[in-house]
Amino acid sequence: MSPFQIETIGLIAAFLTTGSFVPQLIKILKHKSTEGVSLSMYLFMFLGVSLWFLYGFLIESFSVMLANLVAGFLQLIIIYFKLKWR
Amino acid sequence: MSPFQIETIGLIAAFLTTGSFVPQLIKILKHKSTEGVSLSMYLFMFLGVSLWFLYGFLIESFSVMLANLVAGFLQLIIIYFKLKWR
Repeated sequence: MSPFQIETIGLIAAFLTTGSFVPQLIKILKHKSTEGVSLSMYLFMFLGVSLWFLYGFLIESFSVMLANLVAGFLQLIIIYFKLKWR
Repeated sequence: MSPFQIETIGLIAAFLTTGSFVPQLIKILKHKSTEGVSLSMYLFMFLGVSLWFLYGFLIESFSVMLANLVAGFLQLIIIYFKLKWR
């Protein structure tokens, strides 16, 4: 498999795992409630994606860097609402 | 940075992002409720981590493979309870 094909798989994976935070964010905004969403989950995850971003940089994986940059941004928004409406 | 040091960062990242599903799972089991947890989020994410696992295999990243294997397993448990208690 060519590096281009491999990176395409990585980008589809990135789109899915990062995109999976969007329905959760919509649900939070629609109900104006973060009930049932775990703050500790998002705090661990945010720290984790920050390290994944560093790891992606070190192994020179564009997919890993992009996925975790966007995921971290969406998680920060969810953490913000969780703290605002606690 | 040595490959060993890089992989250590990846494994810490893996531990954090995968571990972040544990508090959510505990919360679900404690309250016997999946209210507020988005099913579509977990379905997208499960498909995503499956592709990440494949990507990790293709780029020969042990951290990416391990993180997504364990995360996928935890997500399957959450999806199971979401469907059971819907």
